[in-house]
Amino acid sequence: MKDSAVLLITCPDQKGLVAAVSGELYRFGANIIHADQHRDHDEGLFFMRVEWTLSDEDGQPFDIQAFSNAFTPIAQNFRMDSQLHVSAVKPRVAIFVSQHLHCLADLLHRHQMGELDCEIPLIISNHTDGEPLARFYGIQFHHIALTAATRPENEAKQIVLLEAAGVELVVLARYMQILSPEFVRRYPYRVINVHHSFLPAFIGARPYHAAYKRGVKLIGATSHYVTEELDDGPIIEQDVARISHRDQVDDLIAKGRDLERMVLSRAVAWHLDRRILRYGNKTVIFD
Amino acid sequence: MKDSAVLLITCPDQKGLVAAVSGELYRFGANIIHADQHRDHDEGLFFMRVEWTLSDEDGQPFDIQAFSNAFTPIAQNFRMDSQLHVSAVKPRVAIFVSQHLHCLADLLHRHQMGELDCEIPLIISNHTDGEPLARFYGIQFHHIALTAATRPENEAKQIVLLEAAGVELVVLARYMQILSPEFVRRYPYRVINVHHSFLPAFIGARPYHAAYKRGVKLIGATSHYVTEELDDGPIIEQDVARISHRDQVDDLIAKGRDLERMVLSRAVAWHLDRRILRYGNKTVIFD
Amino acid sequence: MKDSAVLLITCPDQKGLVAAVSGELYRFGANIIHADQHRDHDEGLFFMRVEWTLSDEDGQPFDIQAFSNAFTPIAQNFRMDSQLHVSAVKPRVAIFVSQHLHCLADLLHRHQMGELDCEIPLIISNHTDGEPLARFYGIQFHHIALTAATRPENEAKQIVLLEAAGVELVVLARYMQILSPEFVRRYPYRVINVHHSFLPAFIGARPYHAAYKRGVKLIGATSHYVTEELDDGPIIEQDVARISHRDQVDDLIAKGRDLERMVLSRAVAWHLDRRILRYGNKTVIFD
Amino acid sequence: MKDSAVLLITCPDQKGLVAAVSGELYRFGANIIHADQHRDHDEGLFFMRVEWTLSDEDGQPFDIQAFSNAFTPIAQNFRMDSQLHVSAVKPRVAIFVSQHLHCLADLLHRHQMGELDCEIPLIISNHTDGEPLARFYGIQFHHIALTAATRPENEAKQIVLLEAAGVELVVLARYMQILSPEFVRRYPYRVINVHHSFLPAFIGARPYHAAYKRGVKLIGATSHYVTEELDDGPIIEQDVARISHRDQVDDLIAKGRDLERMVLSRAVAWHLDRRILRYGNKTVIFD
Repeated sequence: MKDSAVLLITCPDQKGLVAAVSGELYRFGANIIHADQHRDHDEGLFFMRVEWTLSDEDGQPFDIQAFSNAFTPIAQNFRMDSQLHVSAVKPRVAIFVSQHLHCLADLLHRHQMGELDCEIPLIISNHTDGEPLARFYGIQFHHIALTAATRPENEAKQIVLLEAAGVELVVLARYMQILSPEFVRRYPYRVINVHHSFLPAFIGARPYHAAYKRGVKLIGATSHYVTEELDDGPIIEQDVARISHRDQVDDLIAKGRDLERMVLSRAVAWHLDRRILRYGNKTVIFD
Repeated sequence: MKDSAVLLITCPDQKGLVAAVSGELYRFGANIIHADQHRDHDEGLFFMRVEWTLSDEDGQPFDIQAFSNAFTPIAQNFRMDSQLHVSAVKPRVAIFVSQHLHCLADLLHRHQMGELDCEIPLIISNHTDGEPLARFYGIQFHHIALTAATRPENEAKQIVLLEAAGVELVVLARYMQILSPEFVRRYPYRVINVHHSFLPAFIGARPYHAAYKRGVKLIGATSHYVTEELDDGPIIEQDVARISHRDQVDDLIAKGRDLERMVLSRAVAWHLDRRILRYGNKTVIFD
Repeated sequence: MKDSAVLLITCPDQKGLVAAVSGELYRFGANIIHADQHRDHDEGLFFMRVEWTLSDEDGQPFDIQAFSNAFTPIAQNFRMDSQLHVSAVKPRVAIFVSQHLHCLADLLHRHQMGELDCEIPLIISNHTDGEPLARFYGIQFHHIALTAATRPENEAKQIVLLEAAGVELVVLARYMQILSPEFVRRYPYRVINVHHSFLPAFIGARPYHAAYKRGVKLIGATSHYVTEELDDGPIIEQDVARISHRDQVDDLIAKGRDLERMVLSRAVAWHLDRRILRYGNKTVIFD
Repeated sequence: MKDSAVLLITCPDQKGLVAAVSGELYRFGANIIHADQHRDHDEGLFFMRVEWTLSDEDGQPFDIQAFSNAFTPIAQNFRMDSQLHVSAVKPRVAIFVSQHLHCLADLLHRHQMGELDCEIPLIISNHTDGEPLARFYGIQFHHIALTAATRPENEAKQIVLLEAAGVELVVLARYMQILSPEFVRRYPYRVINVHHSFLPAFIGARPYHAAYKRGVKLIGATSHYVTEELDDGPIIEQDVARISHRDQVDDLIAKGRDLERMVLSRAVAWHLDRRILRYGNKTVIFD
């Protein structure tokens, strides 16, 4: 059972950043497991992720509260945007799904196997197809039928459920509805979607049909944070599969399902492991 | 040294097509090496490629002229669009290049190694950078400086050179000029270009800069036949490479060079081996 | 609902093969959907797969029995090893599994979605972990505890179950037991296994540990027909994933699970679609 | 024109390492461009690569000699194995080649384009095929015919040439001779070879023939440091390409050439950029 802390930092690049952060961690006796940094020279930005153990082998526990207090002036001094996470506090995740269940089934199986380090208190769907899977994995399932007319009140229902469950991250696992700008603003960079194309190619509806029509030789899938502009949020992961003239639209859809599963589950796992730093419309993925 | 014939067929799909073609080939004693077919059920089209040896092991030569005559009524009967190629007649290819020489160097080296089954009588460039490579590989190099004002007369010069050399296929190996519609119409589906993005994403100029700006996680390259609409012709081959937040535009450009080399050289080799059938804006690639 | 027939042929290569087969199909009015051929010139072998519809759009049903009778002398004449399958007869498949359930979960979900064209009457396991999944998907689950001492009698139990259920294909979905030569001989090229390495590298137990120790930069997985020699049967499919020095053995195992799922499910789907022809220790995969 | 320094560190893992190194760099005013670390928890080892500019934008030059002196006691204190490189000192590289020239042509073209940050004072070959390419790129070519009988004296000749040219790295670009243990010991982890298989599969001669015989569905290539044991040195890079039953041995060889070029050129570029740390039989590749 992992017992560690992760510190994520974004700030203007300047000299002495690593020395300051690593010096403070050393002062508190941190046993660092992973550390990674990145600089975007064009933007003049510095990014850092450090992970260290909280219960040392020699029995000395790391005083996370004291460290947090001591780190505050450092963060202010370097104008850092920083987050401090401890593994004991599991992120709470809601999955939204419609009728295509392959991503849902994949996420639930991975969660059960321990690949996704989170709690999943609920699944919300505008259809009932996903209910048996939810029940099998012991997760609450909420069916909220959606029509254009009732969207505002239904989103209100969704938000009540999400807030009651303390949800931090919403995963759209082939959820075939567009979220309102209000919803998106309420969960900034905390909604992950999978789009069934290699973005920015084939934005919008029926991308496999569009890919077939264009005669491409590879199809793709993209996971990204949802922003107010459709299919335009920061990309987290992409993957492709080779197709040929023998593949009809149905074959593209079938091959695409495997891509969708992969890019979505990777994005969720990385988000949960606090390995993603977003800036502007881009992501840094620490590996 | 290969001595074979290739028959390429496109026609409306109907029963008896394979029986008719293979029956006629059998009647002439063809020793088939490869045969492949495809049906596009949506379009109701049938595609076929057959390759057979011309000089049999038992010394009996295949009478290609007699077969061609006998096949004509069959082709008419089935409303076939057919091509008959013999390996003894090498396609003649011209390469157009500007200042980026990686595709040119790659094509010339592959040609020398025997990977590209063609003659390359000439290279045309709007710069002089490619001249030493051309000279090293013993190929004529023509420098035709281009300005917007002189394009018509310069294209006229190009066409004179291409016609004098009996060129069948023009390869744009990172040629940074747009061909006129008149030029394209003169060489229908006989100009192959490499575009340095995963089409249809990032059409037009500076695709690596656009990819960097969008924050994609894979970059691509596409080889395609040139049509009058920019970057919209039938796609022949595509490939991608993974990038990360660590890659700057220059890294994208460097990684992209390898993709460009691969997708362009594959497209040219397949075209020369008569493995591509184009229909509408798509390609069938027989492997 | 597909209603088609598939003819698979392996025979010594000679002239007139395609003409004979396609002529006979034409005589019976077959509406061919797919046809593919291959020649192994070294071995002098010819391979063919033809698929055609049984209920034509114009209402005329294809007389499969009459065709079968008429084809017999042709097959004998050309010394063909041929199989004739109709889609109405679904192959019956048993899945063997131990404690790692990712391949089982994947196969069952794909089956439910219609990706695998078969019946799955039973699952056999030397553990009970897979039972809930089996029950969820409504498939009989048989727990047969295995020890070295009891293997013969337990395999006898397995065979009774397989024969009672009319099983044609056995899929080893991370079944961590070695089948006896007698078992393998009873199901020749009808047992598909997934090995968690890029064969022939890392044959045998704990391949991820071996890969980690060797410091490879890619890990792989392989699906293959089981023969009496361990991990040496004809390969059906392989795939790889990139790893780095950051990946520990546990990361290799996690990344490998995705590869195992993919290569095993593809192999099973291709087998069921009658797209695999085995010869010697190799496979032809018609796409 | 890059003007930077790279510090590479390998040492037993312990607390305070990053604080010590980054603190010292900060004290000297280093403007860090890239920094990366890795811990091998099994081995208890720490790895670090830091790169910083030597001529700052504000005109303040970094005093590399003073830093080196100040760093010595830190390195001793932490029992570091450290290397300090400055970009102004270009590594000097010799290429060994036999008759297959694709890797040589690729390396020379990349070098000319500026992708490989080194000097290439000489090429050594047991054949004369590579001489025109060497001459085209203006590099000295030495033909040393090799027979088993004359190997010792010929290796002696090679070593005289390498030493006279101040060569730090030897690249075996499809050099079809086995180096003696004495030679290998003289250039420890400073000889990079490309093996035309996915190691550890198909060690030794004619790997494409072995891969064809085994019926694999992917072929690979591997670049690695040469050790005294054949094809067993630390792996730097690997890549694979998909093949099918249609591919004969010649097709494997042709597809493999592209893999060989890629994995060898990447390995050389990474070595030159001081991005590789070797330990035991493994490599850390900082990206």
